[in-house]
Amino acid sequence: MGRTKTVLSRHVQAGMPIMSRLYDVIVIGSGVGGYTTAIRLSQSGLRVLLIERKLIGGECANYGCVPTKALYSIAKSVRQLRVARFSISWSGNPLEFAREAAAKAREGIAYLLDRYGVEIVYGEARVARNAVVKVLTKNGRVEHYEYRYLVIATGTEPRALPNIPIDEITVLSNRGFLNLDELPSSVIIVGGGAIGVELASILANIGVKVRIVEVAKDILPGMDIDIVRTVKRFLREQEVEIFTSSTIEEILKTGNQVEVKLSSGPRIQTEKILIAIARRPQTRDLGLEEINVRVDSQGYIVVDSYQRTSNPKVFAVGDVTGPPLLAHKALIEGRIAAHTILGKKVVGYLNREIVPVAYFTIPEIGSIGLSEDAARKRGYKVRCVKIPVTVSSRAFIEGCEGGFIKIVMDETSGSVLGLHMVGPNASELASVGLEIIERKLELETVASRPYVHLTAFEILRELAETVLGEPVNIYIPKR
Amino acid sequence: MGRTKTVLSRHVQAGMPIMSRLYDVIVIGSGVGGYTTAIRLSQSGLRVLLIERKLIGGECANYGCVPTKALYSIAKSVRQLRVARFSISWSGNPLEFAREAAAKAREGIAYLLDRYGVEIVYGEARVARNAVVKVLTKNGRVEHYEYRYLVIATGTEPRALPNIPIDEITVLSNRGFLNLDELPSSVIIVGGGAIGVELASILANIGVKVRIVEVAKDILPGMDIDIVRTVKRFLREQEVEIFTSSTIEEILKTGNQVEVKLSSGPRIQTEKILIAIARRPQTRDLGLEEINVRVDSQGYIVVDSYQRTSNPKVFAVGDVTGPPLLAHKALIEGRIAAHTILGKKVVGYLNREIVPVAYFTIPEIGSIGLSEDAARKRGYKVRCVKIPVTVSSRAFIEGCEGGFIKIVMDETSGSVLGLHMVGPNASELASVGLEIIERKLELETVASRPYVHLTAFEILRELAETVLGEPVNIYIPKR
Repeated sequence: MGRTKTVLSRHVQAGMPIMSRLYDVIVIGSGVGGYTTAIRLSQSGLRVLLIERKLIGGECANYGCVPTKALYSIAKSVRQLRVARFSISWSGNPLEFAREAAAKAREGIAYLLDRYGVEIVYGEARVARNAVVKVLTKNGRVEHYEYRYLVIATGTEPRALPNIPIDEITVLSNRGFLNLDELPSSVIIVGGGAIGVELASILANIGVKVRIVEVAKDILPGMDIDIVRTVKRFLREQEVEIFTSSTIEEILKTGNQVEVKLSSGPRIQTEKILIAIARRPQTRDLGLEEINVRVDSQGYIVVDSYQRTSNPKVFAVGDVTGPPLLAHKALIEGRIAAHTILGKKVVGYLNREIVPVAYFTIPEIGSIGLSEDAARKRGYKVRCVKIPVTVSSRAFIEGCEGGFIKIVMDETSGSVLGLHMVGPNASELASVGLEIIERKLELETVASRPYVHLTAFEILRELAETVLGEPVNIYIPKR
Repeated sequence: MGRTKTVLSRHVQAGMPIMSRLYDVIVIGSGVGGYTTAIRLSQSGLRVLLIERKLIGGECANYGCVPTKALYSIAKSVRQLRVARFSISWSGNPLEFAREAAAKAREGIAYLLDRYGVEIVYGEARVARNAVVKVLTKNGRVEHYEYRYLVIATGTEPRALPNIPIDEITVLSNRGFLNLDELPSSVIIVGGGAIGVELASILANIGVKVRIVEVAKDILPGMDIDIVRTVKRFLREQEVEIFTSSTIEEILKTGNQVEVKLSSGPRIQTEKILIAIARRPQTRDLGLEEINVRVDSQGYIVVDSYQRTSNPKVFAVGDVTGPPLLAHKALIEGRIAAHTILGKKVVGYLNREIVPVAYFTIPEIGSIGLSEDAARKRGYKVRCVKIPVTVSSRAFIEGCEGGFIKIVMDETSGSVLGLHMVGPNASELASVGLEIIERKLELETVASRPYVHLTAFEILRELAETVLGEPVNIYIPKR
């Protein structure tokens, strides 16, 4: 593409003739996938328009990772002091801190977009033929913008259950939950997936009575069985009640509380209900059919490994392209899309099966690659080695007894298929899995490395030594 | 070597004829270097005797890394809650938790030694000719043990200043400090090196008034200048006073406190004085001259890259072989020594210049390879790139504004010489430096990786993007 750096003002002027509303790239959605793609393209000299319906930063900055991590940092600290057998009393508003963290992230992103010269328009976008995007702005105007390339980064949105409409008063989405004045005394979390379990563990540690209601037989579907078992044990310790194979049948108001009747029998009093079931892609009202952009049966946009859709002028990045729904996957997809549009060599094709995953439960979950079960189903002759995280004193210090690290290997080739952990800094270790699985860092090398004492890395080293038959900080009798 | 697995009882019986006191390997010192070497050799079928003077686990488990990390976990949590603007009150004894963590580590190591069949004798060891070690046991007996190979892992010990004798009442070593009934209200830490600075930051966050007195012009000698500057800023925020180019001239008792007169002028009231100056190797009373084991001018045992000393039957591992004085270096040296004794191929020769270092200050320090200054002094044409850790929202959440990550490169070859960080999980990131410096993980690859959002890894990714000229989460104007 040609470099078409313009000297136009950054913010779009109303009443400009339509022909000057031509952009090199229009990006729809300012979440992690969208804002990073927009900045990358703009800093390379393209004229970029970013269209945002609500808040700059999207789900991750405003309602997802960032505020959740803020809550996590509080919950982890409170628990750590309890582990040290401190008696503590605290006053403060965790939700306020979470909202401030979100605001800081949002403002930071807005600053970056401004400095990098990305133009922004607020409103609902709808694509049309002839490379035009119509925007219904907040004040009711319809504006038209033209693009050479379009990047769709509209993400996902919370879903409600058919019989439990979200009113954001008693029945909340993650967005409504975060906007509560203060923490409720009790909450039923509907959905035992990543978001539900993460929030359950966090909230339980800061004084909220938490129940998880999950329709499936178990929580954390798709996760390695050892992660599921271990996290359930920690949740129970944290007094989270888990109701599996259960749905909410009925909700009765009873003063400040509601009474919830579960399909499995129990009736539960609770102050709030948080819906954390699988989300859905925001592709329905975009007009994608007009421009021949194909979506799959669930509504996710189908892309190739360059993030190209079925329309050669249109790219899609982030959650709207399907699982794994992770901010860091969105960021790398945005990088690939930007480099492709710019005609750069794309380094680091994204293998969606080897994206590290971390959940900030207490302790943390880190996971990358295939679970033991998935590896077996694919026909591998599987070898698994699992050791407790207590091979490092750090695990005792942080109250992580019961946590583990586990490696899933193909016994035939010796190659590593998956790495799973529940324990200190598992969120960091998940990324190390990229070295081991993708870049073939050998376990012999891992075992011989002076990884820092009392970090997650030393737990990995001990795992490698165990695989090699030379564990030192755990006793394994010779067979 | 032959396999000489015996069926003798594990603990040495008094009164046994001297010829049965022949061991394949005798290890002196049960710290990280010693206990791991002993286990490695014993699990491979050798008969191993471990001699310990005081406590199983040595400095790291009993008085160093482990209890310090326990204190850190408390201090970090207290600070995190303050960052979240919580008002908290706590009661509890941090030192008790630290001692418990130490006890757990010690008991764990004792358990492992027992299960792996390592025999233990308690007492002062002194080597003699003809491959004999004399042990003065606690009850005053002198016992003799013979070895085929000897591994010296006696570590270092605290030093006192000539004019300030350690009484472990007012003037404390790290050992005495840890054994205090409770935290003092104020402490002067003599020595602004790693141990002093780490404890200063930790103690200041849990209510102790801390002053550092350092004889040199600055704290943290040898560290990258940006680490020094940044840590000083954080220490000041934490109300730690730093007196450089200063020594203690005089100590006057004044009731429960002492008054300390510094050479630089000030007089300071304090409850305790903690001596944290450079340690010295424990090689003086071992009789090394008897068996022709060479030590350097500072008393450290000279070893080759297989941990062999100048005596072919004698190995040395850990702090006793000189800096860097780090548990994880000791562990890897023990592995190398064990593999050499066992006649195994030694994987992963240890490059002492590329050992990751982490200090659990708040926030953490992580460092590996050359500092900017050291790189220049070696004649490299140096290129440094430094970005704030606030490229990740995690830094705001954890109150790490002011922290940074920095890379030191050789501009001519493009290779990475050093990586330095002050910020969230810098202790984990230091180990990643091994990939980048030793295993030549390219920055192009780092930049293209889906590293987990809100972890230290994403700060590293952003650094790589900045080096490549494509920062996204920081605004850097094009020149």
